[in-house]
Amino acid sequence: MAGSTDVAARESAAPARRGDGAGFDAQADVVVVGGGGGGLPAALFSRWLGNQVILLEKAAELGGTARKAAFWYWVPNNEPMRALGIQDPEDDCLRYMARLARPHRYDPDSPTLGLSQWEYEVCRAIYQSASPATELLAQRGALPYRHCAAVPDYWAELAEDKAPQGRVLVPEDASPTMSDGGVVGVRTMSAAAARDGVDVRTGHRVQRLVVDDGGAVVGVEASTADGSTHRVGARKAVIFATGGFTHNPELRRNFLNLPVYGGCAATSNEGDFIPIASYLGAQLRNMNYAWMCPVPLEKALAGDPSMSGMFSVAGDSMLFVDKRGRRVVNEKLPYNELAQTFFRWDPLAGEYPYLVLVQVWDQRAQDHSASDEYGRLIVPPGGDDAHVLRGGTFQELAGAVAGRLAGYERVTGGLKLADDFAANLQASVARFNELAAKGVDEDFHRGERSVQVLFNGNVREEPGRVNPTLWPLAEEGPYYAALVTGGTLDTKGGPKATSDGQVVDDLDRPIPGLYGVGNCVASASAQAYWAGGATLGPIIALAYRAAQAASAEPARWAAPQASTPPG
Amino acid sequence: MAGSTDVAARESAAPARRGDGAGFDAQADVVVVGGGGGGLPAALFSRWLGNQVILLEKAAELGGTARKAAFWYWVPNNEPMRALGIQDPEDDCLRYMARLARPHRYDPDSPTLGLSQWEYEVCRAIYQSASPATELLAQRGALPYRHCAAVPDYWAELAEDKAPQGRVLVPEDASPTMSDGGVVGVRTMSAAAARDGVDVRTGHRVQRLVVDDGGAVVGVEASTADGSTHRVGARKAVIFATGGFTHNPELRRNFLNLPVYGGCAATSNEGDFIPIASYLGAQLRNMNYAWMCPVPLEKALAGDPSMSGMFSVAGDSMLFVDKRGRRVVNEKLPYNELAQTFFRWDPLAGEYPYLVLVQVWDQRAQDHSASDEYGRLIVPPGGDDAHVLRGGTFQELAGAVAGRLAGYERVTGGLKLADDFAANLQASVARFNELAAKGVDEDFHRGERSVQVLFNGNVREEPGRVNPTLWPLAEEGPYYAALVTGGTLDTKGGPKATSDGQVVDDLDRPIPGLYGVGNCVASASAQAYWAGGATLGPIIALAYRAAQAASAEPARWAAPQASTPPG
Repeated sequence: MAGSTDVAARESAAPARRGDGAGFDAQADVVVVGGGGGGLPAALFSRWLGNQVILLEKAAELGGTARKAAFWYWVPNNEPMRALGIQDPEDDCLRYMARLARPHRYDPDSPTLGLSQWEYEVCRAIYQSASPATELLAQRGALPYRHCAAVPDYWAELAEDKAPQGRVLVPEDASPTMSDGGVVGVRTMSAAAARDGVDVRTGHRVQRLVVDDGGAVVGVEASTADGSTHRVGARKAVIFATGGFTHNPELRRNFLNLPVYGGCAATSNEGDFIPIASYLGAQLRNMNYAWMCPVPLEKALAGDPSMSGMFSVAGDSMLFVDKRGRRVVNEKLPYNELAQTFFRWDPLAGEYPYLVLVQVWDQRAQDHSASDEYGRLIVPPGGDDAHVLRGGTFQELAGAVAGRLAGYERVTGGLKLADDFAANLQASVARFNELAAKGVDEDFHRGERSVQVLFNGNVREEPGRVNPTLWPLAEEGPYYAALVTGGTLDTKGGPKATSDGQVVDDLDRPIPGLYGVGNCVASASAQAYWAGGATLGPIIALAYRAAQAASAEPARWAAPQASTPPG
Repeated sequence: MAGSTDVAARESAAPARRGDGAGFDAQADVVVVGGGGGGLPAALFSRWLGNQVILLEKAAELGGTARKAAFWYWVPNNEPMRALGIQDPEDDCLRYMARLARPHRYDPDSPTLGLSQWEYEVCRAIYQSASPATELLAQRGALPYRHCAAVPDYWAELAEDKAPQGRVLVPEDASPTMSDGGVVGVRTMSAAAARDGVDVRTGHRVQRLVVDDGGAVVGVEASTADGSTHRVGARKAVIFATGGFTHNPELRRNFLNLPVYGGCAATSNEGDFIPIASYLGAQLRNMNYAWMCPVPLEKALAGDPSMSGMFSVAGDSMLFVDKRGRRVVNEKLPYNELAQTFFRWDPLAGEYPYLVLVQVWDQRAQDHSASDEYGRLIVPPGGDDAHVLRGGTFQELAGAVAGRLAGYERVTGGLKLADDFAANLQASVARFNELAAKGVDEDFHRGERSVQVLFNGNVREEPGRVNPTLWPLAEEGPYYAALVTGGTLDTKGGPKATSDGQVVDDLDRPIPGLYGVGNCVASASAQAYWAGGATLGPIIALAYRAAQAASAEPARWAAPQASTPPG
């Protein structure tokens, strides 16, 4: 069923009572809310367990943030690893997860490794269910995959990483660069949903829950762009998978640990589940952390729905400098870590001096490292290059950067390029070139970790070079620049749910009939970004578990005679 | 009425319906929940407007966090300023507030200065009501004050601070050092409450609201340590003033922007209002920021109720070093800023390298800068010095520090002193001594702001010295050390309330009969710590406004005949 292109406005999230109004407009055993990387698997798993399933998606099409992603998915101890004889036992994997989730609480001798009991249980559930979930999706043709045997975890060199390569899968038909995995994965899962009889309704914004007298969730009320309300009953359970709150500026500024301008999640990710579940006493958890990524300043400020996070900062003859023209960071850090840099606080100036950094590159990088994949800012001729600034000299480039920044002063706290930017940039490039010539970044250690090489992108071949992430910038222009800040892929916080996806109330009691998976509920990863696909792998695992638990709930009433039984 | 020394356990926060049970055990026009720096003024202001008032306090005694504070209160454009002819117009003051609340959003040309509409309105309310509230408390003898004409704001040198001195008041009978202001202020307000007929009931933990069929809040249910439930009706309104969530580790780790170990708020500050209000659709705001302060590691980890934040890091021949023995921060930064330092993330090591810093001082500082006030770690002979480590040489001192840290490895992510700590400390002291001899801290600019001098504490007089914050450490021991981390005074987040203290639902509609003031509701200060007393000044202003609005609500039923009318 085609959805409207418009999205209904937000209404009150206060729950409706079952006794209100005239029954349901539609009903199923399981109602899934949201049709992205969490909702599609949740709907499929529920359907395959014999349930009648309605999927309500707020946007005009399925896919959510997953459609924009490369759709790597991190699956510990996956089937191809086992086939290759790569060991990834549970205890080791949990240590890696805990070490990064709560670094300053990590305790190898604690029964929960320093995690809270809830975090520990959910991490175990991820380990135990990611592979079975993945195999089932593949077997049913919903998400055939291929193994990325050489892709490292993002902290592969940590002592706690005992299986540093091999945990990442991608949709089978993704391109060799894998950047279109999301389009492929959403297509195959959507096709399976259509094939297997999931009743998909796009353009439906769920506004509130329907609750019976005993406090169980028995349905939802959704509105469409025409203003009408649709009351959809769930005989067993409702599973929310509505994404995070990247596109809710009010929630961002009041919860996130860093004051980002935005992110590249689907624009429908406005945190709708937060008020909806709060009315039933749900506890919000992990509201401070996000899946972070550098983003181009202009698109972040514009809320551009096409924006991609900068997963890969490509190029060798390329560096980042601050508003004073000084190099301040390892540009090849994994994106989640690189994105933190922008929010270092200066306690004397009372400002974020690195809020906007300037990516600078030369013609060599332009010629050899251009790409329109993975959010790279060095784009090929003919691509969208509105963010690219140019100068024949560093002085000219500084003028272009200063002019662009001036247009954003009202939303950057008056951030200006320093008067000595060009001179400092010249000195920074000289120092960078000296390090690049040696192939050793003594200042920031660029290129010393496998993940940094993984995201280096295409560079001109230089026979015999040991560090492919470094090369001196040319003595002569033209030079190029672009403005970068930190953003989110999506947020990590929301109602607390058990390792079976059951949303709990303020005393940790499951709310009957209410489930959540994906970025709309709290992630047990806390502050960690374990690896590429550490988003979608755990989400698929928990969707699998939530579908099983939801399916096992008693039907609260019999299906009406007229409805089509599950096939 | 004396309270129990025990606190009742938490129960479900799901609201009760008025129809439930057998009416109220007690009732008043206004019920105030919490008897600290927000609740005492709210109760007094409500009472003085002619209302019958019941005040329910969870702890065994009144005072909350305010009792532990110096009780400076920041009152823009206060009466003594006006008497002295110090100009502090509203527009200027709001610019200072906005510049620091949202530094990267500050826009001098925006109607709201870059704040959200809500933040702007609450900041205006603070400006407009802090002085009238203060004067009324003084006139009624509840909180006589004296003016701290020389105390600067914490960002006095910012261009936006047009009244950098004079906004701070303290309770009149506080000692010359003002550190006992909280004890004095709580005593005078408690006495006024008793004198004027506020019905104070300690040992009462409010568990949930009582709501009528129309959705209005008409009372609360509180439990006492004996397990009994007390249903207290509010004919006009309930005003919460229950403090932040410093002592709820689960909330701390899931909301705060920095992973602190604890703080020095009253131990009863466990965030009780969060689940209570969430059930009515309240929106949580400013959950990421806290009033920050360095704290001694041992007491923070122990949750010691006697712990004071380190408002003043005293001494001249004193420095902080990291686990490698390197100086990394200006030790005299105002406490809110200094506390951020501990949580700088190392994106290659995957750790917080400054999670614990080591304060080091010599015999000179011990002899001349010891004090048991303002959380200082250099304590006089006979004081509580369990946190003080000693060594005749830096090598010996390193051994003592390493030993102490070893006992905390399981809760610090395995943090260890580096093997070269003593050597690096020696070099850091040599560098520090060189700068101190010059009186200019070229590395971290210690002593260059008025607030840094304000908190310098007592130091040995050195005639002709221009920078009293610096003096070389002695060439010979003994040396002393203590372990420091970052913590909170209390948190800043909670339900969103209007500039009249009305808690709003998910669509910004006031919830009838429900008010909140103080650290239990969202602070519009966002990330700012404007000045000493930027906690209590605004709280008193908003308590005044909430009491006025609550008093103006219609009584939802008539007072019973038997009850004593307001005097």
